[in-house]
Amino acid sequence: MSIGELNAFLEREFPEIGWMGIEIRRVDRRSITLGMPAQPRNLRPGGTISGPAMMSLVDLGMYLLVLAQIGPVPLAVTTNLNIDFLRKPPPGDLRAEGELLKLGRRIAVGDFRIYGAEGDEPVARASLTYSIPPDRA
Amino acid sequence: MSIGELNAFLEREFPEIGWMGIEIRRVDRRSITLGMPAQPRNLRPGGTISGPAMMSLVDLGMYLLVLAQIGPVPLAVTTNLNIDFLRKPPPGDLRAEGELLKLGRRIAVGDFRIYGAEGDEPVARASLTYSIPPDRA
Amino acid sequence: MSIGELNAFLEREFPEIGWMGIEIRRVDRRSITLGMPAQPRNLRPGGTISGPAMMSLVDLGMYLLVLAQIGPVPLAVTTNLNIDFLRKPPPGDLRAEGELLKLGRRIAVGDFRIYGAEGDEPVARASLTYSIPPDRA
Amino acid sequence: MSIGELNAFLEREFPEIGWMGIEIRRVDRRSITLGMPAQPRNLRPGGTISGPAMMSLVDLGMYLLVLAQIGPVPLAVTTNLNIDFLRKPPPGDLRAEGELLKLGRRIAVGDFRIYGAEGDEPVARASLTYSIPPDRA
Repeated sequence: MSIGELNAFLEREFPEIGWMGIEIRRVDRRSITLGMPAQPRNLRPGGTISGPAMMSLVDLGMYLLVLAQIGPVPLAVTTNLNIDFLRKPPPGDLRAEGELLKLGRRIAVGDFRIYGAEGDEPVARASLTYSIPPDRA
Repeated sequence: MSIGELNAFLEREFPEIGWMGIEIRRVDRRSITLGMPAQPRNLRPGGTISGPAMMSLVDLGMYLLVLAQIGPVPLAVTTNLNIDFLRKPPPGDLRAEGELLKLGRRIAVGDFRIYGAEGDEPVARASLTYSIPPDRA
Repeated sequence: MSIGELNAFLEREFPEIGWMGIEIRRVDRRSITLGMPAQPRNLRPGGTISGPAMMSLVDLGMYLLVLAQIGPVPLAVTTNLNIDFLRKPPPGDLRAEGELLKLGRRIAVGDFRIYGAEGDEPVARASLTYSIPPDRA
Repeated sequence: MSIGELNAFLEREFPEIGWMGIEIRRVDRRSITLGMPAQPRNLRPGGTISGPAMMSLVDLGMYLLVLAQIGPVPLAVTTNLNIDFLRKPPPGDLRAEGELLKLGRRIAVGDFRIYGAEGDEPVARASLTYSIPPDRA
C-alpha cells in the first residue's frame, strides 16, 4: 500500500490517527518514518509528548508498516509491545523510525526508535509483535 | 496517599485521567484495582477498548500504585512497559488489577492484568518499571 | 502429559534439564511448579543462582507447561521472553511458579515468578510467548 | 576498558564466558561485537544454538558494553531482559551486535541483534537494562 492508500484506510478505520496528528512521512519494504506533532492532546505538563502518546505512535506505526506490505487487513492485532523510555523528550514534535525485522505468515516483528526534532539520541525504543490472521489471502 | 488524595493530585497533574474516565476502585500497600469505562474516546470499531487505552490504563495504574506508597512525586517516570494482549476484550468496561512486586529506593516494578466485566480470563497482562527520583525524601 | 511422561520426553530431547538439575514438582491444566538446585553450574560468585540459569528455568518451565497441555510437540518454540530481575536471590535452591494465561491454536502465553527457598517476595518475574506449530494435530 | 582488560576481568569473575566460548571481537564507546561458537554445550538437536545460550550471549554482551565504558563494576546487574526469537538460527557460529542507547548514572539500556554466519536477517533481537550501583565512583 502506498502512503495515500494507507492514509485513506486509516481515516476510515482509525479516526484517532488524524486526531493525534500522526503522519506517515515515508514507508518502504522494510521501514517507515512517522511524525507526531506537539499538540495539546499529546502533551504532559512542560510541553513534552506523553508516554501513552509515544506508545500510540509506535503501535500505529507498526500496524502501518505491516499494512504497507500485506495490504488492508483490519484483523492484524498487536500481541506484544515492549518500550523503554530512555530520556525525557525535548519539547516539540517527535519522529519515529521503524524497521521490520520479520514478516512471517503468522507474525510480524518490528523495532522502533523515537527521536526529538534535534539530536541523534533516541528518547525511546520499542519492539512490537503483530499477529497476522491466517486467512488474509 | 488515600484514594481521595490520589484523585486530587491526579486532577491537578494528569487531566487525561478524568478525560479517559479511569477510576481508582481500591488501593493498599501492595495492590490496586482500577476501572476504565467504555466511552467513545477509548473504543475501537466494534465497541472494544483499544490497545493504547489499555496501555494508558496500566501506565497510570502503576504510577498511582507507586504514589500511594511514597506520596506525590511528579518526577517518577515509567522506564519500561511490556504488555501482552491476550484476547480481544469483550465490549464494555475493563478492570485492571495491579500488584507491586518491588518498591526499592530507585526503582519500582509492578505487574498488571486487565479483565472484562465478566469472566476470569485476562485480556492483557503488563509489567512496568518506574524510576523513582533520588531526592524524593 | 504427566510428570513422568514429561520427564521421559525431556531426557530424550533436552539433556540439559538433567544437567542443570531442573525438576518438575507439580503441573496441572493451568500452572506448574519447578525447582532449580544451587549446583555449581548455576551459580554466580557468592553462591546465588545466575540470571542466565533463571532464564533457562522459565524457558524450560514454559515449554513444559505447554507440553503438559498439548503433548510432545518438539517444534513449539519460544518467540518472546521478558524477565525482570527484582532482587538478588538468596543462596540456595530456587522455585518457579508458572501460570498459563493463554493457550490458543497458534500461541501460548505464560507468566512466571521465581522465589527463594524462604520468603514470599519474588526474586524475578517473567512472561513468555510460545509459538505452536500449525500442524500439531 | 580495552578488550584485553575486559577478558582478564571476565576470566576472574565469569568463568562461564570461556566455558561457553563467547569472544569479544570489537568494542568502542557505543557498540560491541561478540561471537559465540557452535560448541556442544550451546546446541539444540539439529546443531543450532539454543535460546538460553543466546540469552547468555546478550546478557554478557550488555555487561561487557557497560564495563567498557565505566570500568570494572562487579555489582552492575541486569534488571530487565527482553528478547524476540525471530527465526531458527542457521547451524554454526553466531554473532551479536550491541548498541548502547543510554548510559545514565543509574541505568544503562542497550539493544542487541544476533546474526548467523551468513545473511543479514537477524535471528534474534534483545533489549536489556542494567542497574549501575550508585557508589561506583
